[in-house]
Amino acid sequence: MCLLLFQMDEGDSSVHILPGVKRIILVLSGKGGVGKSTVATQLSFAYQQAGLRVGVLDLDLCGPSIPKMLGLVGKGVHQCDAGWLPVFTDESQTLGVMSIGFLLNNDNEAVVWRGPKKNAMIKQFLTDVSWKDRDVLVIDTPPGTSDEHITVMENLRQVKVDGAVLVTTPQAVAVGDVRREVTFCKKAKLKILGIVENMRGFVCPNCKDCTNIFSKGGGEALAQHANVSFLGAVPIDPNLAMAAEKGENFVQTFTSSPAAEAFHSIMRGIDSSVSH
Amino acid sequence: MCLLLFQMDEGDSSVHILPGVKRIILVLSGKGGVGKSTVATQLSFAYQQAGLRVGVLDLDLCGPSIPKMLGLVGKGVHQCDAGWLPVFTDESQTLGVMSIGFLLNNDNEAVVWRGPKKNAMIKQFLTDVSWKDRDVLVIDTPPGTSDEHITVMENLRQVKVDGAVLVTTPQAVAVGDVRREVTFCKKAKLKILGIVENMRGFVCPNCKDCTNIFSKGGGEALAQHANVSFLGAVPIDPNLAMAAEKGENFVQTFTSSPAAEAFHSIMRGIDSSVSH
Repeated sequence: MCLLLFQMDEGDSSVHILPGVKRIILVLSGKGGVGKSTVATQLSFAYQQAGLRVGVLDLDLCGPSIPKMLGLVGKGVHQCDAGWLPVFTDESQTLGVMSIGFLLNNDNEAVVWRGPKKNAMIKQFLTDVSWKDRDVLVIDTPPGTSDEHITVMENLRQVKVDGAVLVTTPQAVAVGDVRREVTFCKKAKLKILGIVENMRGFVCPNCKDCTNIFSKGGGEALAQHANVSFLGAVPIDPNLAMAAEKGENFVQTFTSSPAAEAFHSIMRGIDSSVSH
Repeated sequence: MCLLLFQMDEGDSSVHILPGVKRIILVLSGKGGVGKSTVATQLSFAYQQAGLRVGVLDLDLCGPSIPKMLGLVGKGVHQCDAGWLPVFTDESQTLGVMSIGFLLNNDNEAVVWRGPKKNAMIKQFLTDVSWKDRDVLVIDTPPGTSDEHITVMENLRQVKVDGAVLVTTPQAVAVGDVRREVTFCKKAKLKILGIVENMRGFVCPNCKDCTNIFSKGGGEALAQHANVSFLGAVPIDPNLAMAAEKGENFVQTFTSSPAAEAFHSIMRGIDSSVSH
């Protein structure tokens, strides 16, 4: 069996190819559809709400959904002397975004590039974007251990990453994939900042009864087993799904909802993990 | 932009490299996590319940979840003169399964093979499995337009496929990915048998109130737009999620549930699409 391994460059030996970016956090998942991009998006909004200057780099070349989730579909990327200019959500440029979605002409068009082409694109995304000063850069990655995933991780060897947040849904099938991802991170010497369990429990808006539609506690059990932090559980919230659809800032609009509180708490947990 | 296109071999010119298999159906999705493997699994159970001899070929090399969903974790694949023997769920061998999951020694192990290695494996899966007589073979494919997806589709050029079932969840982000997949199928001249909308609506077990957690109707609208059949909507059912966890036959155990009825109806819709 050909298990591809590599070392992440660490400490001072690593080249910081993203100047002006203070902290870099990867959002990973062992499988698709667990809400990785939703977590990356709302986490970025939470950082912005906390007064930080935030960047979001969408490296999920399989299905770039970040532009839609941030309400930026149809926006174009401009070139300046310092490189590509990210698309900003606001005039004061507190939240900047770069995604392959901005480079596709047609929403119906499939991104069916082969490895080498993708490789070149990822390299450009890591070196040619003029982020300006960012307190934190959240990188959304392709799911699983697909070829795209490996390509992204290999390219990230040159970047001093602070760590990875692993997203799972509660059920064992998804947790199994994340378990493999934990093994992958450990072999790659990539620091795991913690695990997020998404889609835990649904509270009926009519009777307030809670149903664990997709089971419960898989992420927490995995965190214990793998001896990494459990950052929190995000409940199923139709408003969150709707916000992702409409490109709305959920953590701000529904700031007192349990899901928004979960994102803020996860953000604090990440900060604590980074500084330890 | 390098858009990779290829022609599926059609009609008599195609080589039937899966002898003994009468009908071949692909299950595709534009993104991961929409329940593609769940649909493939329960559809196979529905065919079995209808008295057919069924094969399930799991080509989702990113995260092979079929063994778990069919309750076959830990089973081994044996070699015979005619090739690899599938793992059968029952003594009368009405449901046979082949998956890369059977070939992994350790559940924690990530399948991080590069393209060429995967390519060889897929070729073997298509040529070296002794399926014996199968009325229908359901092929679960890697999600999206990932490199794995392209590799699988290229290898399937040599197989006379009856058509593809596209799975989506209701929300627009997922539907967008499936829209790209429709474009992909049309360019590849792969017949689309229809679209399945998974995770539509959740009926609270306490008060019976229905919430469209992940929106509603995206799959139906896409089917109309793309001028393909809409095969049906599968509601969210915790018993279905649990069955997938435990490797249980949901369509049999909960045979009168709306979700099980949806799978049977989808099966009939596929049969009708194939014969037209």
